[in-house]
Amino acid sequence: MGKLYGIGVGPGDPELLTRKACRLLREADVIFCPVKEAGERSFAYEIVKEQVDEGKAEIVFLVYPMHYHGERLRELWEENAKQIAARLDGGRTGVFVTLGDPAIYSTLMYTFPYVEERGIETEIVPGVPSFCAAAASVKWPLAAWNEELLIAPLRRQDSARLKKLFAEHENVVLMKPSSDRQALLEALEEQGLTDRFALVLYAGTGEERCITDFEELKMAEIPYFSTLIVKRK
Amino acid sequence: MGKLYGIGVGPGDPELLTRKACRLLREADVIFCPVKEAGERSFAYEIVKEQVDEGKAEIVFLVYPMHYHGERLRELWEENAKQIAARLDGGRTGVFVTLGDPAIYSTLMYTFPYVEERGIETEIVPGVPSFCAAAASVKWPLAAWNEELLIAPLRRQDSARLKKLFAEHENVVLMKPSSDRQALLEALEEQGLTDRFALVLYAGTGEERCITDFEELKMAEIPYFSTLIVKRK
Repeated sequence: MGKLYGIGVGPGDPELLTRKACRLLREADVIFCPVKEAGERSFAYEIVKEQVDEGKAEIVFLVYPMHYHGERLRELWEENAKQIAARLDGGRTGVFVTLGDPAIYSTLMYTFPYVEERGIETEIVPGVPSFCAAAASVKWPLAAWNEELLIAPLRRQDSARLKKLFAEHENVVLMKPSSDRQALLEALEEQGLTDRFALVLYAGTGEERCITDFEELKMAEIPYFSTLIVKRK
Repeated sequence: MGKLYGIGVGPGDPELLTRKACRLLREADVIFCPVKEAGERSFAYEIVKEQVDEGKAEIVFLVYPMHYHGERLRELWEENAKQIAARLDGGRTGVFVTLGDPAIYSTLMYTFPYVEERGIETEIVPGVPSFCAAAASVKWPLAAWNEELLIAPLRRQDSARLKKLFAEHENVVLMKPSSDRQALLEALEEQGLTDRFALVLYAGTGEERCITDFEELKMAEIPYFSTLIVKRK
């Protein structure tokens, strides 16, 4: 039977791929790339394409629409698993690429049990999470010694939760800080954290940029690919 | 002037090194390896040594004793920075290796400002954290959608805090679970989490092993290099 690897391709710089990811990409018969809509370009594939022998490997784009819930989501995973299994028929090897690390805000691992149900062996290969690249960019430790680190996504219209979260944790990584910029600005100001944050835009890519000045943050456009680090101390 | 790179070498498997880490190791004039005591072997160096041209690069072991505090710790960072700067005199390039990722429970970033004070440029290169390798090993997502993830070290004699932490967070990565096995067993039992954990030993190395059975956990030796994942749902 076939085998499917789920690999984290890191935050964006192709040099942040692991050696194992590169080897598996070179050896694969099929590369599966998740996209939000049919015909859309896959950012994960852009990162790995230099490593892929396009004459050898088949590239398959799998649609994972955002905002699916409950039963519909389960059906989507099952349907994509069916497509994957069909392509790996006859003992072929596949690689499923995902941004950052597969365990951190990726839906890759939800498809895998359905692939296994179809008799295909799976393996997960970890990658560099975007928040590690963001911390590297500003040269800030995320946690040391006995400190804790909270990783949380910013949700829309949830400013009370955000303030509580900043109040209760010494180190916070906020994913998707673009979700509610007003709540973010308010919470930083109220919690006295206007000089304790770093917003890293496009961490680990050629367009990486960092904002640590609150006045600049107020004026800035916050893109989807950004990470906020807040350190109380 | 010289340049110093601080690189995360990942959890243990040399194949989990990034391409960038490999390139920098090949190009470096000096490799700095932290050890707890003079003469001790460096686990970070074991991971990278296949990538190093030992005929070209000088290998320097820097002593970072555990349990230094306050002023003594600051002096240690300064003293090690002085040694680093001396070796990079004349525009040489150095690589400082650290396990996992430099931002996650590594003291590497505390030495770097002192190195910069001596006129040496620095750059941090992120790596794969051990908890991502642990999650990959058991194929568990650490966080998805709107979930939060708390990363915390287990401290000795702090079982009340541990119970609170398990009660309040849906996803927890507990570092150094060997610190207080009795507190750990109690907290898992009290919080009804005896079937909601995975203890991964030596994640991302050849000796990787996983315990998800509570009775087995009760009997097991927990080594220093292990990571506990707890998921409420």
